[in-house]
Amino acid sequence: MHPAIGYIHLKRKVFVEELKAFLRIPSVSTKPENKADIRKAAEWLTAHMKKIGLEHTAILPTGGHPVVYADWLHAPGKPTVLIYGHYDVQPAEPLELWATGPFDPTVRGGKLFARGAVDDKGQVFMHLKALEAHLKTQGSLPVNVKLLIEGEEEIGSPNLARLVKDKLALFKGDVVVISDTAMIAKGAPGITVGLRGLVYFQIDMDGAKSDLHSGGFGGGVENPAFAMAQFLAQLKDRNGRITIPGFYDDVRRLPAEERRALARLPFSEKRFLREVGAPLLHGEKGFTTLERLWARPTLEVNGIYSGFIGEGAKTVLPCHAMAKVSMRLAPDQDPNRIARLFVRHVKAIAPKTVRTRVTEVSGRGTPWLASTDEPSLQALARAIRKGFGKPPVYTRTGGTIPVVATLTKLLKTPCLLMGIGLPDENAHAPNESLDLDNFHRGTLAAAHLFLELAKENRKKA
Amino acid sequence: MHPAIGYIHLKRKVFVEELKAFLRIPSVSTKPENKADIRKAAEWLTAHMKKIGLEHTAILPTGGHPVVYADWLHAPGKPTVLIYGHYDVQPAEPLELWATGPFDPTVRGGKLFARGAVDDKGQVFMHLKALEAHLKTQGSLPVNVKLLIEGEEEIGSPNLARLVKDKLALFKGDVVVISDTAMIAKGAPGITVGLRGLVYFQIDMDGAKSDLHSGGFGGGVENPAFAMAQFLAQLKDRNGRITIPGFYDDVRRLPAEERRALARLPFSEKRFLREVGAPLLHGEKGFTTLERLWARPTLEVNGIYSGFIGEGAKTVLPCHAMAKVSMRLAPDQDPNRIARLFVRHVKAIAPKTVRTRVTEVSGRGTPWLASTDEPSLQALARAIRKGFGKPPVYTRTGGTIPVVATLTKLLKTPCLLMGIGLPDENAHAPNESLDLDNFHRGTLAAAHLFLELAKENRKKA
Repeated sequence: MHPAIGYIHLKRKVFVEELKAFLRIPSVSTKPENKADIRKAAEWLTAHMKKIGLEHTAILPTGGHPVVYADWLHAPGKPTVLIYGHYDVQPAEPLELWATGPFDPTVRGGKLFARGAVDDKGQVFMHLKALEAHLKTQGSLPVNVKLLIEGEEEIGSPNLARLVKDKLALFKGDVVVISDTAMIAKGAPGITVGLRGLVYFQIDMDGAKSDLHSGGFGGGVENPAFAMAQFLAQLKDRNGRITIPGFYDDVRRLPAEERRALARLPFSEKRFLREVGAPLLHGEKGFTTLERLWARPTLEVNGIYSGFIGEGAKTVLPCHAMAKVSMRLAPDQDPNRIARLFVRHVKAIAPKTVRTRVTEVSGRGTPWLASTDEPSLQALARAIRKGFGKPPVYTRTGGTIPVVATLTKLLKTPCLLMGIGLPDENAHAPNESLDLDNFHRGTLAAAHLFLELAKENRKKA
Repeated sequence: MHPAIGYIHLKRKVFVEELKAFLRIPSVSTKPENKADIRKAAEWLTAHMKKIGLEHTAILPTGGHPVVYADWLHAPGKPTVLIYGHYDVQPAEPLELWATGPFDPTVRGGKLFARGAVDDKGQVFMHLKALEAHLKTQGSLPVNVKLLIEGEEEIGSPNLARLVKDKLALFKGDVVVISDTAMIAKGAPGITVGLRGLVYFQIDMDGAKSDLHSGGFGGGVENPAFAMAQFLAQLKDRNGRITIPGFYDDVRRLPAEERRALARLPFSEKRFLREVGAPLLHGEKGFTTLERLWARPTLEVNGIYSGFIGEGAKTVLPCHAMAKVSMRLAPDQDPNRIARLFVRHVKAIAPKTVRTRVTEVSGRGTPWLASTDEPSLQALARAIRKGFGKPPVYTRTGGTIPVVATLTKLLKTPCLLMGIGLPDENAHAPNESLDLDNFHRGTLAAAHLFLELAKENRKKA
């Protein structure tokens, strides 16, 4: 057994306690009132990186929340691995649905519950602990390592591309490793080879200049809440297909072979349905659930508000309605083109009885597909086999990691997605959790990955 | 000049200051946290009634908020007038849209701004001041008077009918007078001869058992926010007609003569549009705006909520959506039948991909049409001519005063609707106001009404 591996087994419990301290910081990136917490999380992270032996730790300013950087570059002739992650988290609301506080990390039944446990603080920490294991037992790493841990992933990484462009030499490496995804099921460690893209808008509709009495005015002027409902209802047809003209033009068709491979994966529609707790599975007709989740675009209403939403009754005819609408994009849809098509469509179908505004409220994410003949992907496969005791399955995810497209494009390097989340861990929802067994095995796999990448590069060179 | 009339002219400014004290009490009936304020308003009212010379003042308990009662019954052989009003008010939210505090009554440009100024504290106060004028100058009233001022009008008067049934003898009279309506335009005092009815529901739709990540799960299960939008959109067709089967069965057709009379009223669609500030007028095709507002039923979404509605973006697939939906009913629709049809329709069209609940959240209101050959209506017409200096116009209102149907049915008496509100006074909306000139003239008209009703009864007897 490699000494780094022994170290990880020995420190298993200590690592969880350390992670709790990181999770206690409510680093919610979308809320202005958490700005100081974001700073605190960045400072905690740099202090911890220094402690485990990383060098050149820095909090790099951006137009928004800062990026945390560190490196260790004393392996001449070996590849340089850039590890990307994020220390910001989603808002925790609705708070009343959490069994224990979102920022009071608690272990129950082998799971660690906290906002950010799996998305993404726990997965960032897994890499830090793997690096610590090598540094503390060997005094060195098998490869050169750079870390780029950002604070704006949950708001679409609006400032990251510019920073990377500005400091290209600082971030340049041979391969990027990102752990911000989930495996398909417990016991089925995977490598994510595809991601969906994202565009996200807010629609506002204004009717009368102020709220009106629904008795005195009902039937006289448009009700923006009803106009919004009619507008939203038009965005998908009865088959669940999005009605925006041109929307599907660039969607890559799933080859029959890949559809067969998806069907063989350890994914049970029945179990998925039980886990989410909905009455029925639902979505675009003609596709299996996995195909819809991974390889088909979707349009979701993420939020809607108008009028009186308190207890009881208020006979108001609201003067304003708001909806948040986002689209997940499949390869090879271009988020810039889809954003244009969406705005044009809103203008085309919004009723003239209200004043309609469209605002983009998040950065755009480009869909991504990995190149399967990449040697570093094989190194990751071996590392997972060693860490988890079984070979990985190749999966996609319906989520968006805009940075994957950004970094592969800017740094011109392959990207490895090594995710240890589970589908029922409630990323972005109340009671987010991290399976501690996966956290441990993931840390082992990460330690192996550095060893395997060192070999891979030798072969290649 | 009758001394009571002189007294009202003399006390004009004092009356406004007194009304302000009443308006300072935030007697919001729909909110549990205002329960003590409701009590305070009832106590303020009884104390004031005692002060002006009314008798048997009492706070009558009901299952909910109490009814305030008072009378003066020393005019043997004269008719007994039951004055109905309400001391409860609508919620003031959204507070940030008020120019001055909703419970900090402020005069600007001849208008008194406060929640309840016109709906209905100001109009209740008009009658109190007319009674005071007679009592303080004559030591008596021209007629017998009873007052029934309730605290649950804004939540649909759920306990009033039972109280009136239980104490029928206490409330029995020859005519009911209600001032809780608006005139069609300043300078056009009116008598309201028609009201719409009301049914009000809350719809809840549940999808997954908790909010989900819209990336990982979008396309896999139903989005309740989208399902709700689709559901609501189906409730009206492209012509603005409500699609509930059987909904229009009992709607009384407007006779050609009444349509012509409506067209002659001093109502400008252009001015109405400017006042409400909407981009266009809108509603059921084939009817003028006044016809739609007064004589046609309508369905309104009073509120809608789902998912993330804060600033920025949250990539959530919500697990729940809620909408408040109410219908205004035209003569002769029966609210009980419409409620049954609505619930049946919801169950018929709600998608099976969500769990749907329907809850009735307000009392039902029956639509009402006055009998125009009623002598007391002519007495009111003369009183208005004297108080306002011009003859009244006959109008309807789109609002609902469920108590009109309740009281006329239980007490078997005619009902006079003498409203002094204006269409732009924002009842139920921020910056509610009361025109102080109308308040003064209305008080004069109310004082005349008691004199005219005394005459009318003599003629009739």
